[in-house]
Amino acid sequence: MAVNVYDQANALEGALRKSDEFKTMKEYYEKVNANPESKTLFDEFREVQMNLQQKQMQGEEIQEEDVQKAQKSAEDIEKDENIKALMEAEQKMSELIQDLNRVIMKPIEELYGVNNEN
Amino acid sequence: MAVNVYDQANALEGALRKSDEFKTMKEYYEKVNANPESKTLFDEFREVQMNLQQKQMQGEEIQEEDVQKAQKSAEDIEKDENIKALMEAEQKMSELIQDLNRVIMKPIEELYGVNNEN
Repeated sequence: MAVNVYDQANALEGALRKSDEFKTMKEYYEKVNANPESKTLFDEFREVQMNLQQKQMQGEEIQEEDVQKAQKSAEDIEKDENIKALMEAEQKMSELIQDLNRVIMKPIEELYGVNNEN
Repeated sequence: MAVNVYDQANALEGALRKSDEFKTMKEYYEKVNANPESKTLFDEFREVQMNLQQKQMQGEEIQEEDVQKAQKSAEDIEKDENIKALMEAEQKMSELIQDLNRVIMKPIEELYGVNNEN
């Protein structure tokens, strides 16, 4: 049975790869990477975001300087059409994946939902 | 295109529902719920776990009492064959889902992996 599950997962993987959502994300990701200015801004933004997340997760205090850096970086990428388009595409892809997960996890949610009412 | 993705997600959902992993988990979940003693122990264990997680997430101090409660509850469920079997089945299901996610997310991982080397 498990084989069948993996076959279906591979089929879904193939469909995801061919989806408009993925193709759009890929297109803009490549555009950002092909443009040195966009790439630098994007890498900086990601790094600032990751630093902030790390500090939050480790319970470290967020400094005024960190907040300003994050704001500046967010403003910078807003002005870059490639990055703006990529981030919108990433958001759509993320929503699609959440939807797909909701579909796939239905059996487990049903099982735990129904029996909890016992 | 998106429709095709959802069709494939539904097919995977159906395969997951028919998988040995899911059927075993369902069987033991129903056994635990059908047995009042097992059900009480299981509910208690889940509650203790959730309380601990919540305290950790909110950065609250974990009291010695909380640790003892969690240990006691973990020992109690170890002695219950139904719960032990359910937890093993849940573990296997969780591993299967992680595997499936790795398969499905391949296009995105490939895209971000390859281009990061630019």
